[in-house]
Amino acid sequence: MASLDGFFRPESVAVIGASRDPRKPGHVIFRNFLEGHFKGKVYPVNPNADSIIGMKCYPSVLDIENDVELAIIVVPAEVSIEAMEDCGKKGIKNVVVNAGGFKEIGNIRLEEQLTKAAGKYGIKFIGPNTLGIFDAHSGVDTLFNPKYKLERPQAGGIAFISQSGAIMSVVLDWMSMKGYRASKFISYGNAADIDESELVEYLASDHHTKVICIYLEGAKNGRRFFDITRQASKKKPIIVLKGGKTAEGSSAVSSHTGSLAGQAVVYSSAFRQAGIIEADDIEQIFDFARVLSSQPKSKGNRVQIITDGGGFGILFADSMPKNGLSVSRMNEKRLLELKKQLPEHAVVGNIIDLTGDVNAERYEICINAAMEDPDVDMIAVIALFQVPALTGEIVEVVAEAARQRKKPVIFIAAGGRFTEVLKKSLEDYGVPTFSYPERATAALKALKEYSARC
Amino acid sequence: MASLDGFFRPESVAVIGASRDPRKPGHVIFRNFLEGHFKGKVYPVNPNADSIIGMKCYPSVLDIENDVELAIIVVPAEVSIEAMEDCGKKGIKNVVVNAGGFKEIGNIRLEEQLTKAAGKYGIKFIGPNTLGIFDAHSGVDTLFNPKYKLERPQAGGIAFISQSGAIMSVVLDWMSMKGYRASKFISYGNAADIDESELVEYLASDHHTKVICIYLEGAKNGRRFFDITRQASKKKPIIVLKGGKTAEGSSAVSSHTGSLAGQAVVYSSAFRQAGIIEADDIEQIFDFARVLSSQPKSKGNRVQIITDGGGFGILFADSMPKNGLSVSRMNEKRLLELKKQLPEHAVVGNIIDLTGDVNAERYEICINAAMEDPDVDMIAVIALFQVPALTGEIVEVVAEAARQRKKPVIFIAAGGRFTEVLKKSLEDYGVPTFSYPERATAALKALKEYSARC
Repeated sequence: MASLDGFFRPESVAVIGASRDPRKPGHVIFRNFLEGHFKGKVYPVNPNADSIIGMKCYPSVLDIENDVELAIIVVPAEVSIEAMEDCGKKGIKNVVVNAGGFKEIGNIRLEEQLTKAAGKYGIKFIGPNTLGIFDAHSGVDTLFNPKYKLERPQAGGIAFISQSGAIMSVVLDWMSMKGYRASKFISYGNAADIDESELVEYLASDHHTKVICIYLEGAKNGRRFFDITRQASKKKPIIVLKGGKTAEGSSAVSSHTGSLAGQAVVYSSAFRQAGIIEADDIEQIFDFARVLSSQPKSKGNRVQIITDGGGFGILFADSMPKNGLSVSRMNEKRLLELKKQLPEHAVVGNIIDLTGDVNAERYEICINAAMEDPDVDMIAVIALFQVPALTGEIVEVVAEAARQRKKPVIFIAAGGRFTEVLKKSLEDYGVPTFSYPERATAALKALKEYSARC
Repeated sequence: MASLDGFFRPESVAVIGASRDPRKPGHVIFRNFLEGHFKGKVYPVNPNADSIIGMKCYPSVLDIENDVELAIIVVPAEVSIEAMEDCGKKGIKNVVVNAGGFKEIGNIRLEEQLTKAAGKYGIKFIGPNTLGIFDAHSGVDTLFNPKYKLERPQAGGIAFISQSGAIMSVVLDWMSMKGYRASKFISYGNAADIDESELVEYLASDHHTKVICIYLEGAKNGRRFFDITRQASKKKPIIVLKGGKTAEGSSAVSSHTGSLAGQAVVYSSAFRQAGIIEADDIEQIFDFARVLSSQPKSKGNRVQIITDGGGFGILFADSMPKNGLSVSRMNEKRLLELKKQLPEHAVVGNIIDLTGDVNAERYEICINAAMEDPDVDMIAVIALFQVPALTGEIVEVVAEAARQRKKPVIFIAAGGRFTEVLKKSLEDYGVPTFSYPERATAALKALKEYSARC
């Protein structure tokens, strides 16, 4: 297996098709490398410009004096074959072909030419027809969407491989807003060379990546994907959302990426055998990923609910049976101890309802008790911030509990801006947060199943 | 049926327990009436203060010179019986008892005394143990949560009756952030007098309310609730989320509001017979409510998807069959016409994929075609704003289409801050927006079923 480090940690990058026009993808991508935290050298290539953003521009990669480790091709499809040839002559071994206009619109021949040109020089390439790749750690960023329209998330442990560029762009933008953290994001486009299997294999040994997420319409080579994910899922969690699971969606897939979507049941069964966790929707991929990448394994399925809103506690409990979870009950002596430390109106039973006059200290008392109790496997803290006495202090209390890594801890709060700011702080501390109970319990189910397997 | 207008459109309000301490509920509630857009007179009542926020304070409601239409009791449970007596002597007929400390913590006797005192004078009351009531149109606001922690939504057509104060507070805050619009929100607490049935009956004839949403743990009088909702659901949509549907959740209900949660199947079947639409989670109540309160009825189940991201189109289509929807197909002549007006790489089939170089004009062309085509019942516009050429102009295009009220139109976009701002604008124009396909199709299902019934 060849390493793909040249794509994600290159010492030097050439942007073929770099442009002076800020509206052009070739400009945006070049600027990403200059203005982000990328540490290597960057060379703009464009025969019609002398300099771009104050940097000397090269007519061809062949004119660059130094070695180039990675090239991004952002020229029209017809010209990209020649660009690939030039890369080969220059000795560049890693290429991202952002350009579209190949197999996805019927230009099969052009795609074959591109592949042939790369093969001749032993070049590995991603694409064509890709949104690009993004590495939050190294600063490699070949996304042609300007940052004001598509924010980039901070560095963390979630990797995402996407057969759809649009879905990847949405996810990056949304993760940034939510404060979720990314390692490597790869839109692999038509996968004329590097495909989902090779990417999974690489990410399985990437030390920045804690969990591998995939949006898949159809695997290029099903058998190989199965074998590789079965191995990789032993090292770290793999979560897949399958697009085109129904006849309705499937008919759209063929016109989208040209893959055969296959039957939902066949895929689901193969996923299970390969140790893959299947998500039902886009948000759920990242619900699962955040919990699996940040929390310790769970020893069982018993969840202690600690809430300040009775209704939220009930809805949380309601959503547990279908996810194979049960409400835990601490031992009676401990509950009696708790009762003494809490106001009379607090409900101390299977669910602990601290009610509307709660403060952070009462949460701390209950979380500590649940941490100690052997009959509690996971802890769900529900803290609705609309109540008067609850302040941001709860963030520290929950973060501290999670930091012990003794039991999985998740946090549920919904509301407006105030709530969102505090939840983002918790995400920063590595505590997965949820707005509503149903999504949280589904994520705990995923953690429980992964824990039981590994 | 007695009108509850005195609660929601009073000409004068007394806050019994108004306080000078900004941290006290009695202060927050009094301030709400002063600083909001409430047009009537407001009187603070507190025997230990001369003036509050610069207004003359009264030792008792009996000392107020003028008539009082509504009183809010925000004093401790034990004192509230006397406050209720005073209201009776003063001739006040409508009272909200915010105070807790009654049946919900076992003080059944105290609650009986409160009810008796009210009955003696023919007083109607909401509570005790309620978060309060909120009318976005009149400015009545008895919520004791400060506005920086719990924002208030703008005036619109969604009413919400909640057996849980916490859930109501979360929802109000969240709706404000999202730009969703409210009519009347009522936390009815222990329902010692006014209960969910009476509130439904009132809201059914309230001209501000377009849709009635309910969070229900257990109906006080199941038969009456059934009869009233069956009548009311003929006038406007009623959406219910039932808390305590499982054994896990149910065991928590009894300690929460003291209701008997009842069996899930029994409730679900009764809901269906009463014409009630059942939601699966909190967000879904408002997914349904926004579509049902803003969109015209649908003539069938065929949805035209117009997207700029192939993957999103596929996931949308994938989620349709389980919601009883099908992908529409415009007639071939119209599709040929469309093809001529769009770039070659646009996919013009069952799903229209305008791809990543889309602009607002192309959306307009396709939306207009779908509006005209008799084989399209509903229109789902997916516009991922991360692509370079798509600007805020799409907001006008979609709003204009929805304004025609010929067919239901919904909008799907996910991402970060830029996306959220544009979605909020669309909500302002009365177009329901969604982040991810699955929630949107569930809401269209609700609309389809409601349309078929009425």
